[in-house]
Parts: sequence; structure tokens; C-alpha cells
Amino acid sequence: MSRVYNFSAGPATLPEEVLKRAADELLEYGDSGQSVMEMSHRSKEYQAIIDDCEARLRKVMSIPDNYKVLFLQGGASSQFAMIPLNLMNKTGKADFVITGQWANKAYSEAAKLCGAENCNIVASSKDKTFSYIPELDKSKFNPTADYFHICQNNTIYGTRFAELPDTGNVPLVADLSSCILSEPVDVSKYGMIYAGAQKNMGPAGLTVVIIREDLIGNAKEGTPTMFDYKTHADNGSMYNTPPTYGIYILKLVLEWIEKMGGLTAMKEHNEKKAAILYSFLDSSKLFKPTVQGKDRSLMNVPFVTGDADLDAKFVAEAKKNGFINIKGHRSVGGMRASIYNAMPIEGVEKLVAFMKKFEAENA
Amino acid sequence: MSRVYNFSAGPATLPEEVLKRAADELLEYGDSGQSVMEMSHRSKEYQAIIDDCEARLRKVMSIPDNYKVLFLQGGASSQFAMIPLNLMNKTGKADFVITGQWANKAYSEAAKLCGAENCNIVASSKDKTFSYIPELDKSKFNPTADYFHICQNNTIYGTRFAELPDTGNVPLVADLSSCILSEPVDVSKYGMIYAGAQKNMGPAGLTVVIIREDLIGNAKEGTPTMFDYKTHADNGSMYNTPPTYGIYILKLVLEWIEKMGGLTAMKEHNEKKAAILYSFLDSSKLFKPTVQGKDRSLMNVPFVTGDADLDAKFVAEAKKNGFINIKGHRSVGGMRASIYNAMPIEGVEKLVAFMKKFEAENA
Repeated sequence: MSRVYNFSAGPATLPEEVLKRAADELLEYGDSGQSVMEMSHRSKEYQAIIDDCEARLRKVMSIPDNYKVLFLQGGASSQFAMIPLNLMNKTGKADFVITGQWANKAYSEAAKLCGAENCNIVASSKDKTFSYIPELDKSKFNPTADYFHICQNNTIYGTRFAELPDTGNVPLVADLSSCILSEPVDVSKYGMIYAGAQKNMGPAGLTVVIIREDLIGNAKEGTPTMFDYKTHADNGSMYNTPPTYGIYILKLVLEWIEKMGGLTAMKEHNEKKAAILYSFLDSSKLFKPTVQGKDRSLMNVPFVTGDADLDAKFVAEAKKNGFINIKGHRSVGGMRASIYNAMPIEGVEKLVAFMKKFEAENA
Repeated sequence: MSRVYNFSAGPATLPEEVLKRAADELLEYGDSGQSVMEMSHRSKEYQAIIDDCEARLRKVMSIPDNYKVLFLQGGASSQFAMIPLNLMNKTGKADFVITGQWANKAYSEAAKLCGAENCNIVASSKDKTFSYIPELDKSKFNPTADYFHICQNNTIYGTRFAELPDTGNVPLVADLSSCILSEPVDVSKYGMIYAGAQKNMGPAGLTVVIIREDLIGNAKEGTPTMFDYKTHADNGSMYNTPPTYGIYILKLVLEWIEKMGGLTAMKEHNEKKAAILYSFLDSSKLFKPTVQGKDRSLMNVPFVTGDADLDAKFVAEAKKNGFINIKGHRSVGGMRASIYNAMPIEGVEKLVAFMKKFEAENA
């Protein structure tokens, strides 16, 4: 079988040229005589890879010098604990916007570890299955919170913050797992950005944290050493063995993004794909998008027919035709096309053509 | 350059045929039309891979049914926290044998999180730079400890427990990072075994935990969700996205071990390699082994010339001749040859031939 179009929400499709290069270099990297997987993380050869990866990420995202880049393990799920353990250290309070399952997990873990009474829910869109980003009433913000947390792009529900909340001096902490590297962001507006790699960056098992230096070094007593950002910041992400191969793949992905024209070009590419899909969905008699207007994600596009049997038929036929992982999350139902950076425009065009055909046959 | 002989302590050399297969399958796994790195961890295709990996590990290690196998992230360094947080829950006390840096970290993290007064040091070999395994005085064991911790093979110092301490009803918890899969072990003698993958199992970023079921489910209050074994045990290591590609490589390594004849054959293979190296070291006029007798590791063989300049010259010339990462850890100095499963006998024979030549030239 040839390569399919993979609409998985994550782990997700990677650029074919990245995979080809990884395959070519798998047995011997450059003239090192070894696989990147076999390299001592303390070797000059590997240090050059991780340094290059960090330098490229800093350049591509224009990360200011007063931010540390950390290459960690444990996924966003570990960050849900690390954030409160490291940051809820002055007033011991934090603000949360609940826009989906992951935003809620970030809130719940903070409440578990630091007390629900200290975790303020500013707004939630749970009333309509998280199908929108709630308006934020600034009078509900705690001006002395230790941080303000959002999940910027909500993978399951296909929403995203089109604008960042203005949190003043309160550090904005944002989960960018499913939108990092999809468009330019102004890193200086955040106290901290974090992302699991397995959508736009590389393989699962690598988590990237971009954190303003003044937020490091005040972890609460009883924080495990591995959950203290200072442990990793002080050791260049080498306190223990980092996920070396995942960092190497991220480096290749960053090289690919640079070649594609950087994040400005990536944004155009992603807007074009999203427009193709949303404009078809808005005109379709069979398929309906579940999110409207400015809250629509560029990365994850959920849609339904309104008939569970027909949804299932569509998912099955799509798979037969080489469009895989298009089933929606069980909490939304229907379908979801995740169209991350590595999904080519052609993949979206072909999906829409297939949807048109399916619509004609099932009208 | 052709492939070198890589004596790295970890990440370490992998079987060439595993790497070749990984390269072949990198772009498309079987008829899935996608890379393993791109697979949704919730897909049937990936579930088959992780199930097969676990089944092979259970078979190769003869893991009893009342033990769970967990595929985690964060390395042994995260286990140093997870173990006390999950296990110091009855008397709140634990016993430790300090046989090196990693054993000491397991102790220190338990002391940090659960109180030094609750952490009993049964014995230590620090007095002689951890060059031996201390005799254990059973009267120093706490018969009501919640666990008894050892680092079974000490990567830096080249020692290993030739026999396990008899801890009676106290669960033995052992770090097998640098000796897992190197020889048969009786899993039923342990409460828990853990290992970072990056020596005998696969790439860095995967940690394997084998834990008796009755030890799961009593984590201390305030344990982060991701640090609770129950979180992972209840979800088949899929509470969040696991390090999917590392698990796939482990599966390939296990297939290779089965083809080589399983752990009995692996032990013979490793004993043969170690014998070649130790018997040369015992007869050499230039090189001296730093560990004697039954405490000698089969996996990590440190040695010195006694002259730091000559050591440096040897390391440099070895590298030029395709024997890399042979420099010893800074705390021991000299050299260290890590000869994990994937190091072929030929690699050790050639190293010894090179050492003989160097000895002749530098006598």
C-alpha cells in the first residue's frame, strides 16, 4: 500500500521528506558510524543535535533570550502537575478557562495538588460540549493569580483562542500541543508555553516547554526533582537522558519548516487547507461543522452528518479510500479531520472531493 | 564511515538487524501506509504493536500473571520519586543499599519526598568509590519496611549483585536499567523491577516497570496523577500518549532476543564477552580492572592504566580505530567498556586485540 492521508489528532502525520531522511540516516548518522538512537547523550555528536534543535526552535518561533527551552518527557499530562507545583508559589492561586477535556485536566490536577479553593474557573464552555470559546469577563480574573491557564487549541472540539486573553502581569500559561508551529505566536505574551510533540513537532514522548526565566526556581516543597523546571533548566535538558531520538526528529521537522518558509508561510498553508474544508462544510447539505466563526481551529475540524450510522459509514468508506483516523472523539461524535502542518493541501482537496462524492451517493 | 563499535554506557549500541528493519519500515509499517511514529496510539494498528511488545516481554522474562508491565516515560530518575510516592504507604519506611550514584539518587529522592528519618541505609560501598557490592548484615534490615531498594547493576562502577538480598516479605525493588534482558531473572523474587530502555531495550525516553499488582493503588496523597502507577496500570499504559516509537523498537529488540535463543542464550553470549575482556585485564601489565571477583558486572567493565595521560591517549586512539565512547565516568576515571546485549563478540575481540597492540606500543 502507498502512504495514506492520515487525519489523526495525534500522534499525527509527519512530513514525508522528514521520514525519508530519518530512514536514510537511521543506521548511520552523518559520518558518526552510529544511529542517533545509539548515541551517548553526553557525546559531542549528540550535543550538536540538541543544540541545533534548540537554536532552530528559537529562530523559527522568535523565542526571546529570557525564555528557557526545555526538552522533557511525560506529555502535557505531566505538565498539568508540573505547572501548579512550580508556579503556584506566591499567592498560591491560579485562574483557568475550561474549553475542553485537556483544559479541564490542567485545572483538575492543579486543584488536586494545590487545593480546589485556590483554582478559579474564569469561564467554561461545557454547556455546549465545548463547541465555542467563551467570552471572558475581566472582572472574574484574579489580578494576583500566580498564573492564568488556557488550552489555546482544543484538539477534540476544534476550537481555538483567536485572541489571547489580556492577563496583565499575571503570567499566561498555555497548552499549545495541537497548534504549536502552525502560525507565528508572540512568545513574550506568555509566561510559559508547553506542547506534546506528537502533533506538529515529532514523535510522542517529547514535550517542549518554553518558560520565562523568572518563573523557574520556586517549586513548592515536596516537588519531585524531575518535576522541578529548575532541574532541567540548570542542566540543558540533560539532568537525565532526554528522549534523544524525538529531539532529532524535531530538528528535522524544524529544518523542513524553515525550508517551507517559516511560520508565516506555515500559517498561509494552514489557512488555505482550513478554508477548503470549512467552505465545503458551510455549503454541504450532508455534512455540518460543529464550530462556527472565529473560534474555529486551523488544525482540527470536527463535523457530523447528524446520523450516527451515516457517520460510521463515512468513516469506513473514507478508510477504504486512504483517508484514515477521521473518526471524531467519542465526546463529540461524528468525524474530525486533523490537518496539522504536515498534511499537504492535496490531502485536504482529495478528502473534500471524496466527501462530495459521498454526499452525492448518500443524499 | 562504516559502523563503529560503540561501548557507550547508554544510550547504547542496538542490534544492527533491528536498526535495518526500523529503517526499512520507517516510512510505511506493514500495509498500514504510515510510519509507526505517525500512528494514532488509539488505532488498531498501534494497539497490536504495544500488545505484541508486552506479550514478548512477558514471554522472554517469564513474567508471572500477577505482575503488571507498564510502559512509561521519564527514565529511572522519575522512578526514584514514583517508588516512594507509591510504595512508602504502610509503615512509611524503606531500606536502601548504596552501591553507586544511581542507588544513591533513589535513596535521596525518597528521603526528600518521605523524610530522611524514614530511609534506612543498610550498607554502602562509598568508602572505595563503589568498587564492590557490600556484604549485607541482615540485622540491619527493617523487617517492616515498605520496600528494600537496590540498583542491581551499577553502570558507572561496573559492579552487580551476583545474588539478590533475601528480604523476606519486604518487597525488593530493583533498578535493572543496565542489566535487564542480559540474563534470566526470577521476577517473582522482586516486588518491582524498573529500567530505562536506553541500554538493553531500545531508545531513550521509554521506561519499563514490572510491578506486582498488590503494590499498585496505594499512592500517597498529593501524588501527581502521572506519578501514580494505578493511572498507568488501569489504562494499559495509555492514560496519555505513550512513547510509541520506543515501544515499537523494544518489540523489535525482543524479536531479536527470541531469535538469538532468549535470555539463557543471551547470558552465555554476555558471559563469553565479559570473560574475554576480564581475562585479558587480569593478565595485562598495562590495564587494570577496577572491580574484582563475583561483583563484576557482565555489562560494564571499567579499567585504568593508572596514568591519566595514558588513559586519555588510549581513549583517543581507540576512537580513531572505531572503538567509541570508551572513556570512563569522571567519578572513576580511566576507561569503561559497556558491552550490552547488542555488542557482538567480535567487537570485544577486536577491542582486546587493539588493547594488546596499545600495550605493546606503550609498555
